[in-house]
Amino acid sequence: MDNHLSLRRRIYRIIFFTDTPAGQRFDNILLVTILASLVVVMLDSIQGVHSQYKSLMSGLEWMFTALFAAEYLVRIYCSPKPLRYIFSFYGLIDLLAILPGLLILLFPSAQYLLIVRVIRMMRVFRVLKLSPYLRQANFLMTALRGSRQKIIVFFSCIAVLVTVFGTLMYVIEGPEHGFTSIPKGIYWAVVTLTTVGFGDIVPKTALGQFLSTLVMITGYSIIAVPTGIFTAELATAMNGGEGLERECPSCKKPSHEPNAAFCNRCGNPLYPREADQPASSPPSAAEQGPV
Amino acid sequence: MDNHLSLRRRIYRIIFFTDTPAGQRFDNILLVTILASLVVVMLDSIQGVHSQYKSLMSGLEWMFTALFAAEYLVRIYCSPKPLRYIFSFYGLIDLLAILPGLLILLFPSAQYLLIVRVIRMMRVFRVLKLSPYLRQANFLMTALRGSRQKIIVFFSCIAVLVTVFGTLMYVIEGPEHGFTSIPKGIYWAVVTLTTVGFGDIVPKTALGQFLSTLVMITGYSIIAVPTGIFTAELATAMNGGEGLERECPSCKKPSHEPNAAFCNRCGNPLYPREADQPASSPPSAAEQGPV
Amino acid sequence: MDNHLSLRRRIYRIIFFTDTPAGQRFDNILLVTILASLVVVMLDSIQGVHSQYKSLMSGLEWMFTALFAAEYLVRIYCSPKPLRYIFSFYGLIDLLAILPGLLILLFPSAQYLLIVRVIRMMRVFRVLKLSPYLRQANFLMTALRGSRQKIIVFFSCIAVLVTVFGTLMYVIEGPEHGFTSIPKGIYWAVVTLTTVGFGDIVPKTALGQFLSTLVMITGYSIIAVPTGIFTAELATAMNGGEGLERECPSCKKPSHEPNAAFCNRCGNPLYPREADQPASSPPSAAEQGPV
Amino acid sequence: MDNHLSLRRRIYRIIFFTDTPAGQRFDNILLVTILASLVVVMLDSIQGVHSQYKSLMSGLEWMFTALFAAEYLVRIYCSPKPLRYIFSFYGLIDLLAILPGLLILLFPSAQYLLIVRVIRMMRVFRVLKLSPYLRQANFLMTALRGSRQKIIVFFSCIAVLVTVFGTLMYVIEGPEHGFTSIPKGIYWAVVTLTTVGFGDIVPKTALGQFLSTLVMITGYSIIAVPTGIFTAELATAMNGGEGLERECPSCKKPSHEPNAAFCNRCGNPLYPREADQPASSPPSAAEQGPV
Repeated sequence: MDNHLSLRRRIYRIIFFTDTPAGQRFDNILLVTILASLVVVMLDSIQGVHSQYKSLMSGLEWMFTALFAAEYLVRIYCSPKPLRYIFSFYGLIDLLAILPGLLILLFPSAQYLLIVRVIRMMRVFRVLKLSPYLRQANFLMTALRGSRQKIIVFFSCIAVLVTVFGTLMYVIEGPEHGFTSIPKGIYWAVVTLTTVGFGDIVPKTALGQFLSTLVMITGYSIIAVPTGIFTAELATAMNGGEGLERECPSCKKPSHEPNAAFCNRCGNPLYPREADQPASSPPSAAEQGPV
Repeated sequence: MDNHLSLRRRIYRIIFFTDTPAGQRFDNILLVTILASLVVVMLDSIQGVHSQYKSLMSGLEWMFTALFAAEYLVRIYCSPKPLRYIFSFYGLIDLLAILPGLLILLFPSAQYLLIVRVIRMMRVFRVLKLSPYLRQANFLMTALRGSRQKIIVFFSCIAVLVTVFGTLMYVIEGPEHGFTSIPKGIYWAVVTLTTVGFGDIVPKTALGQFLSTLVMITGYSIIAVPTGIFTAELATAMNGGEGLERECPSCKKPSHEPNAAFCNRCGNPLYPREADQPASSPPSAAEQGPV
Repeated sequence: MDNHLSLRRRIYRIIFFTDTPAGQRFDNILLVTILASLVVVMLDSIQGVHSQYKSLMSGLEWMFTALFAAEYLVRIYCSPKPLRYIFSFYGLIDLLAILPGLLILLFPSAQYLLIVRVIRMMRVFRVLKLSPYLRQANFLMTALRGSRQKIIVFFSCIAVLVTVFGTLMYVIEGPEHGFTSIPKGIYWAVVTLTTVGFGDIVPKTALGQFLSTLVMITGYSIIAVPTGIFTAELATAMNGGEGLERECPSCKKPSHEPNAAFCNRCGNPLYPREADQPASSPPSAAEQGPV
Repeated sequence: MDNHLSLRRRIYRIIFFTDTPAGQRFDNILLVTILASLVVVMLDSIQGVHSQYKSLMSGLEWMFTALFAAEYLVRIYCSPKPLRYIFSFYGLIDLLAILPGLLILLFPSAQYLLIVRVIRMMRVFRVLKLSPYLRQANFLMTALRGSRQKIIVFFSCIAVLVTVFGTLMYVIEGPEHGFTSIPKGIYWAVVTLTTVGFGDIVPKTALGQFLSTLVMITGYSIIAVPTGIFTAELATAMNGGEGLERECPSCKKPSHEPNAAFCNRCGNPLYPREADQPASSPPSAAEQGPV
């Protein structure tokens, strides 16, 4: 047995981290198990499969519940602070993954357990969180956070638009053409504005079709707004903070190209050598313009 | 009573501004009330709710009308220039918010009052206008204004495209496939070009389906145009493409192009090197590198 | 009568140019007339209107034909080179605008004349061409021309994709689910890839629905490609040629910020004063780094 | 006969390369032949054409097979390393182009041969590969490769979203409204999220329609994400964000960051001012302003 790491600590390292070969193998197996349990849930929801392979399906479900339960107990056992783990976000998700199998004893074939069984999928994020893709997700997150306020303004306008258009269509088309209430009109307005266009409710009157045309053109055009917002923010996030935020000590130009050494407006160095900085007297010949 | 501010002025400050805690609380309550009145209008439009809770709904409508009427009267009372308020944009919107409740006495269950009751929602903007989100909305507005001309050109092309495509489809498919007139053909062209695709009118002939393919590919591609226009403008607006507010040290011209190095009126450098500033004599060795 | 300009030349100036108040007024009247003639064509295509206002409609059509014919003759009369005008692009369009009214005498109620009557709309471009919006259209044109090759590559890929997907769906779903031939399958693939989604032909088999999912995700994602191409080109077109294409005389850095005066890599001036350029001897103290 | 190039080498040059007029002519003829064979496959799939022109179609198919077989044999004959060509990617595609005509003798009218006949289209890429458009395709490829990781993150989120939404809709709407299983629910979620909106399965309950609204708004908004990612990457690829190929004058390190001013290995300036270059002694007055 290892001198530096007890068995418990070694298991902890394997299960909770991904910096050892064993830890990576564990994560891969976990990922496959979670996805397999998802596939079983999906197949089980198909009528034909459910009636034909009933016992196989419930057997697999029991197996996955047992596996996840075992993993949960091991995680509690090896965690340095078990209580903190249990009440952490991922601890609760892990508990949720084994609940459906237990609850099914009490409430057999309860429909809403399905949701819980699918929410197991959230466990995938635990694995992905540890992957090198996280940094890329961070870029996206930074861009989304930066554009949060603009996007709220945008969605407020969308909300006002669909409410007004939905009400207008309810008044113009009326219940005989499928617009049975204002919420239904708003549902139609969202279907149309987002260019989804199911076709379950369509305008029949000339005025309604003319108004629809306006809604569609609006929807088609304002899709540019979130794209524009997000692209501008993402470009900023990827360029690393819109150029160099270093004020030129001479002309005070606030931002420069990311790797600029000299201000491109006044030609003075952006980062004078330390020896030059205190010089408030006229610069001597040897001191002019060094970097 | 306060010495500096009379009761009337204090109410004015609370109702019309948002810079006091009481003013913010008032705005929040107003926002909730407006949204609640909207929800009531929407629920009332559902047949089942309308017939079952008729008296409750009309009671709530009366309550909201009374509240908005009270608020309107208080606004007139405390406003320093009541007439100016009454005929301002928001004054008219405020009046509009209480009209449906009054008109319903004269024209019971008039359908078009619904629109007016929904337009109440416009009052939300009064509240939002005072919020910190305004600056973000300004960014979007600047970008939209900057791209106005390009967008008009773009929409003119769209208008020509849908007219030509709509007419062609009317001639090709004809009334027996649902294209009963040119306006109907244009409606179909808009539905298709914007990628909404309701499916209420679809081409049946081979030639019509081929033409539809062109319309769809066109629509799918030119969605890039408004996005491109808006993104480019927004990036400019966010980079602060305003003029440089640096007074020329020689001729005092107050603003210049963002990265100007020399004044474009007198030709003198805007940012002389520190050592050069007092020098009006011909440059000596100590003045090397002036801008 | 004016000494400098004969009547013929003055009419020429008014009709063909827009730099006089009379010329602008003429263009506006022409624009309204063209649009009015379009509205008449559209209304006439509606069954109810056509049968009820038959004589009014054909009267208006005669009036517009007469107006356009008069305008055409005046254009020929006042044009300095009549033959060149007649065979110019706009000359032919102008002729096309009066043809339907004449042809209708020979082939009454011919369906395809409708197209010619709508093509009259092309005359709108003659008026718009002279407007201040042209410069904005030029921006769009420059961006489109710059991205032409990339867009051809993109459309080739789209063409391959829809052909492969359309054939696969024809084989998988077969004629009993509406995929009666490969061209029909391609039509479906275009409808799906462009996210139009009419719903006239939909996959019924599990494999077909799985494949559809791939097509939709593909279509949803690659819409980014034309947008990206166009945005990048438009930003370049609006920034006026991606920064300053001036090679730094010292370090050869090829491009700089549009208004840079100094190279931001080596600090040397981008545009040395003329007197300094021939200096290949070590610069004297007075010559170092001036702009 | 040519002294420098044998007949075999000359054919090799014409068939495999595009740098001679004959080679370009060969490529154009090949392109037309491939496209013509595709058109025949498509027309043959239409029921009416197939039954009426049966012998013509199968005759054309035989002709194309013979042509492609002859080309294949010539390629093998003139290739310097025939075995290497046969097992190369394009060698296998070329073989695939003649297989359907041969297999049809064994399995007449086999449905899946259609796919192989359409895959012939892949031969178009052989021709396009040699064209000047390749460089543009490279730009797109570079941008796609650069954004690969971000796009994987994005698609993972999409996959999680459609699974959760699909399951929720299956539970809410149930089999009686068309949501017969979770995979069907996921299919619906993809149709809705990508704004395709076939309309073959639509929500009927109020809760289902409310949830649909969320899915649509989500889909409408997150279309901004791939666009943003791709646009930002493409702008970078077009600006040529490669390294600086400037050898450091001191330590000879060959490449640096695009805007580097100093070598990041030895710390010496990459572009000394002209006057400074020979100077290895301590800076004198004549060496002011070194970089």
